[in-house]
This record gives sequence, structure tokens and C-alpha cells, in this order.
Amino acid sequence: MSGPSRDKLARATLTYLAEPGDPALGALLAGNEPAEVLAAIKADELPRGGARSADTPASRAALTRALRRWRLRLPQLPGDAGLEQAVRDGIRLICPGDNEWPEGLDELGPARPYALWVRGQADLRFSCLRSASVVGSRAATSYGAHVAAEIAADLGERGWAVISGGAYGVDAAAHRGALAAEGVTIAVLACGVDHPYPAGHADLFAAIAAQGLVISEWPPGTHPARTRFLVRNRSIAALTCGTVIVEAGERSGALNTAKHAAELGKPLMAVPGPVTSAQSAGCHRIIRDWAASCVTRAADVIDILSPLSVADALAPAGGPGYASSPRSGPPGSRPPVTGQPSRDDLDLDSARVLDAFPARGRIGPATIAVGAGVDLDTVLRCLGLLAGQGFIERCEGGWRLHRP
Amino acid sequence: MSGPSRDKLARATLTYLAEPGDPALGALLAGNEPAEVLAAIKADELPRGGARSADTPASRAALTRALRRWRLRLPQLPGDAGLEQAVRDGIRLICPGDNEWPEGLDELGPARPYALWVRGQADLRFSCLRSASVVGSRAATSYGAHVAAEIAADLGERGWAVISGGAYGVDAAAHRGALAAEGVTIAVLACGVDHPYPAGHADLFAAIAAQGLVISEWPPGTHPARTRFLVRNRSIAALTCGTVIVEAGERSGALNTAKHAAELGKPLMAVPGPVTSAQSAGCHRIIRDWAASCVTRAADVIDILSPLSVADALAPAGGPGYASSPRSGPPGSRPPVTGQPSRDDLDLDSARVLDAFPARGRIGPATIAVGAGVDLDTVLRCLGLLAGQGFIERCEGGWRLHRP
Repeated sequence: MSGPSRDKLARATLTYLAEPGDPALGALLAGNEPAEVLAAIKADELPRGGARSADTPASRAALTRALRRWRLRLPQLPGDAGLEQAVRDGIRLICPGDNEWPEGLDELGPARPYALWVRGQADLRFSCLRSASVVGSRAATSYGAHVAAEIAADLGERGWAVISGGAYGVDAAAHRGALAAEGVTIAVLACGVDHPYPAGHADLFAAIAAQGLVISEWPPGTHPARTRFLVRNRSIAALTCGTVIVEAGERSGALNTAKHAAELGKPLMAVPGPVTSAQSAGCHRIIRDWAASCVTRAADVIDILSPLSVADALAPAGGPGYASSPRSGPPGSRPPVTGQPSRDDLDLDSARVLDAFPARGRIGPATIAVGAGVDLDTVLRCLGLLAGQGFIERCEGGWRLHRP
Repeated sequence: MSGPSRDKLARATLTYLAEPGDPALGALLAGNEPAEVLAAIKADELPRGGARSADTPASRAALTRALRRWRLRLPQLPGDAGLEQAVRDGIRLICPGDNEWPEGLDELGPARPYALWVRGQADLRFSCLRSASVVGSRAATSYGAHVAAEIAADLGERGWAVISGGAYGVDAAAHRGALAAEGVTIAVLACGVDHPYPAGHADLFAAIAAQGLVISEWPPGTHPARTRFLVRNRSIAALTCGTVIVEAGERSGALNTAKHAAELGKPLMAVPGPVTSAQSAGCHRIIRDWAASCVTRAADVIDILSPLSVADALAPAGGPGYASSPRSGPPGSRPPVTGQPSRDDLDLDSARVLDAFPARGRIGPATIAVGAGVDLDTVLRCLGLLAGQGFIERCEGGWRLHRP
């Protein structure tokens, strides 16, 4: 137990050879020990266990091509010294089967990460159990950055981990909001965790590693690339209970994360914004097309992601959805109803009687009956009710509005 | 044919006696001629036909109470001179059975209007066949007013009538937008059309009457009242093909119109806004609770209200809703796709190969294969594809990015 296991070292090495999400490697790892797969690549021979995959019946030819592809990078392997350097830099490796491995990643099937390179002390699996990804446009508006930070801070305060991609704009605002609330936040990168991208976020990544985690499927030393962001996005979606898109233009990369969340059957949420803002167009589209739920605050997100909200959804509704929300948030999330009676709560007859009152001066029941179009008996009943609720009061010669 | 028919005169008179939407009068009118009902009120005796209603089995006692209620206003009847004055003022009466009677109102059952008082020359029934109500908060923000005017103008330009309540804020912006586009717009009031409320909109109402219609269930001379607005709202919802809420606070009266639209089974739509704006909270709630569709522009509204969109919804979808919208608007509503190829349309291998290119300078296939993690055969295939699409070009010693 003095060093990493043989299989763990093999997985570490495989992250250098194959691009993450390669279903051929996923299929081979499903049928063989990682060390066997690595040995097979080095020997340029298919491993004995072959490939197992429910999704892609991998032909021998495809697997042979894959071996050739991975062998191209054999000369670039860092060797044991490189791995030891990573450990000295405070980087650890989390592999399938480890206590910290997040179950959500297993839902990716053969596209599951081979292993995760991790900086930071938080427990990855535990953090992901109550987590939401909060992602969006790099070109966020001040509105988008504000809302992302606000929702992330609220999630952090309520004990939810905020997972994002570490990019400029919405991602950074989400990380910062969670940090400000002293919550756990996790940056999932598309490059090595030793040189996180963008470099302008070096301080942010240091703060995230100190309070949460900076993780990547790519080994130390890997540069980011456009396709790597797209591959990375599936992990952001898979790690969390659900995904919130804060701002996204029509072609934003955040919509790619949204797509992965939906494909995984995980709740997808979007924050609306001004319809005049191009940065909200993607959010509005997925809401309009019923792909995403409309959320405006952390309480909405938690309602959708908590098991409690499932019970709420199954409970018989009290009435049409617009009249009173079954997702009104946890107790205390809204100001309590005050003792002040509201005109909105009056029955129609009482409301009509109250309408008939002049703003100043008194009025009698008969005049009220004519003005309100309500018969005298009803007027008299309503007068008592309205007086009891403090809307009106008796005065000499009739009734008048009560002025507090 | 020299004057209004006996039944029309009776209906005109009944609008003075009973508040609109009184189901007792609706039930009596379903079983008797209007003139018989009026005679019965005057004689304080139930008419021979009794009451007919699918919803409220009206007891004799309830009907007797209703007669008493209506009789209270008999002394206030204007007499024939008053009706003639209304006609001289350019006000006409549209009754059930008239050519101009809008069928949508019949869906209100016993709460159907007894008749409509109308100013303006547009054809009410025809206008309502392609119409949307655009309503919202009186305390609209500049954003809400802007969006309401924009959507209404677009609807007007496309030949859709815009129906609203003539109030300050969103309603006024919607009317003005439709007027600016020379479209038909209809103000549905909760007071007499001779003195439309609010008085500050006198010029607006004059413009609406000149280009569209100002209508009311209440007879000339009626003052507005809070409950009358609520009763009026059901007619706004019933007259149109669907209702659009542009801005609405949590307790906005516009949500009452929304409720009527939903109860009538008519499409309900809401425009999102900044989640930081209290004036959009009601819109976000009904979107969040799936009571309303999210719409951002007139094309969305027309898509939802046009029969075509039903066909679209029934057609097999090309993929998940977020990826490409089946409600992408009528042809020409979006800029056409240009010939410019996009990185987003590349297959994963080609995208990876393209990612491996340096920003400046040349690169060879073997280096690409290592950098992209793609085997050499695939690299060579992708290079041809990428060159064909204009992303890259051959150069001395390899390939480089193509710069237009």
C-alpha cells in the first residue's frame, strides 16, 4: 500500500494515450483489467478479454485501429518520474472502484472517464451527491454573471456543491458565488489540472482547489482544445444531479452540456433573461421547446433536484398550476403571509360590495345593492364580513371605508 | 329593419340591470327569449322557460333572488332616448346570433356576455379569428413596454389582431404597437365605451376606435370597478386564439386573464424577463409550472396559435428539442444559413484534427495524429475534408490554417 496499485498506474498511463471518452478504450476496459489493456497497447495485440459494450459492438478492425492510434503517443509517456511529480504537486488520481469515484460517471457507459486527475481536499463522490452544474456563456452579460453568482451562492449556503467549467463569464461567476458562500465548488477542466485554463483564472483555480476541487480527465501537461471542451461537458452533466444554464447564446457551448444532461435523463434547467438579449436566446429556446425547466433562483433548482419535489409532483394538485405553485420552495423561503387581509381573497359578492364604496364619505346598503348589482340580503351579509376583516366600519348614517 | 329588434333592445336593457357574467341571467337567457326574460324581471315572476344550464342547476330560490337583484336597477334604466343617444354617439350593440358575434365568447357558457357595446368599424368576429391577447402589468418596466409594443407590432404586421385591456403599462404598449403597424387592435373595457377608463388614454382609445374596436359588456355610463376588471378578463381570454402575458408581478391582474385562458383550454404564453425584475416574476412562475409556453417574439406566438404548429408538433421530431427547434418560425423569419462552413458541423475526428493545427505555421500529418489522438489514416481523410471546406490549405512541408 506504499504506492498506487498496478491498475491505478495503468489507468493513469491510459489517460496519456487515449483521448477521454473513446468508446473503444471504454469497451476494452469493460472486458479486461487496466494493466492488461495497457500491456496489450504496448504489445500491439488485442487483450484476451476482448471488448464489451452494450452500445457499440466493436469490431476487431476498429479495435486494431484504436490500438494503433493510442500507440502513437507511447513515446510521449512521462514515465514513473512524471507520475511521482504529479503526486508531489498535490495531484491525486481517482479511479472507478475508489471510494471517491462519483457514481454518476458510470451512467456514461463506454464513454466513462478512465480516471480523474484531482487537485483539492474535498470528497468528490460526497460533493456530487448534492450538486448542480451551473454553466453558461463565456460572453456573459453583467446580468448573467450576477444571477449565476447569486444562484451559486444560495446553493452553496444550502449545502449544495456547484460544478462548472472554470471558463470566463457564467462559469467563473458561479464558482465565485459558491466560494463567497463558503460552499464546495468543483471546476471540471478540459486540460491538465497543473496548468488550468484560462491562465487568467489562476487565482480562481487556486481558491477552488483550496475550498473544493479542480478535476480533469486529461493528465497533467495537457493543453485545452475545442473538442476537449465538448468531451469534458459530458462529465459536467454526468457528475451532477442536474444542470442549470444561466446564459447561453444560440450556439453556446453550454447548450452542449445541456444536451448531455438531457441525454442522461438528468434535470435540465435554464434561467430566463431579457428577450432582447442574445445571451439569453439559447436559454429561452430550450425553455420554449420544453427541454428545460424555467428556474429563477436556487430554491427552484433545489426543488427540482430534491427527492421531496418528486413527492410534491405526485401529490394531488390543489388547483391549476398558475394559481398556486406546488414548487413554492422549502418552508421559509418566501415571506410568510401576514395577517393583513387582501382584496384578492374576497368572494365575488364581497368584492363587489367593497367596490361600491366611495373613496370618501358614507354609503347605505340600498345604494350599495344598486351599485354592486347584488341583492340587499347579500349586501348585509357581506357588510358584516368586510367589517370583520377591517375593510369597512360603521358610521353615522351608514358605512364607510376603514382607514388604518 | 328601421331599428333594433325587440330582442336586441331587450339585451341592451339587460346589460343595465345585471352585472356581466351573472350565471343566473345566462341560464335564463338559455331557456327564454331576451324579451321574455326582461318582461319577467319587470313582472317579478320567473319566465315560463325557466333556467337552463349545464353547470349550475339553478334553484327557483336562487333565480328569485336574482330577479330581486336585477329589479333594484330598474329605476336607473336610461329608456329609449338613452339607447338612441348611444347610437348617435357611434356606439353599436353586437348580440349573440349577429354576424359579428365572436364564437369564442360562447365557450363561456352561462357566463357568456349578454351583448357587447362597440365603438369602431372593424369586424369583431373576423378580427378575433386571428387574434392574440397581449396583456400585462400596469406598472410595466421600460423593458416590458418595449417588448409588448414589439410583439404587438409584429403581430399587426402579420395580420393578427391584438386584443388588450386598455390599461396603463403593457396593455397600452400593446395597443400602440399594433396601431403603429397599422394592425387591428381591440380594447376590451370594464366600463362604458362612452367614457373609457383610464381617462389619460382618451387619445389612445380614439385611435383604437378609428383603426380597430373599443368594446365593453357594460352599457354606456358605467364606471369601472375592481371586480369589473376581473369579470372583463374572462372575455379577453375568450375572444382570442391565445393569451400572451408580457410582464406580471406575483399578484398581477394579468394572471387572472391567464387563469381564464387556461380554464378555457386556450394557449397561454408568457414572455420571460430578467429574474431580478419583480414585474417578470408572475411570467416566470407560470412558465416554471408549465402553465404557460415561453415566447420571446411574435413568430413564437403565431407558431403556437396557427394550425400549422399543430402539424409540426405531430410530425416526428428530428432529434431532442434543444438541438433544433421544431418551432423555428415561418420560413424567412430567421436569417438563412450562409455558405460559410461552421466548426460546429464537423464530425468529431475532423474537429480534433482541426484543433491540432497551430494558429500560425505549418504542421504535418504525423504530428497531427499524435496531437489529436487520431490514427494516421483518419488524419489523412480528415485533411482532405477540411481542405475541401476551406478550413485548411496545403503549404510547403505540410498543411496550415486557411486565412480568408
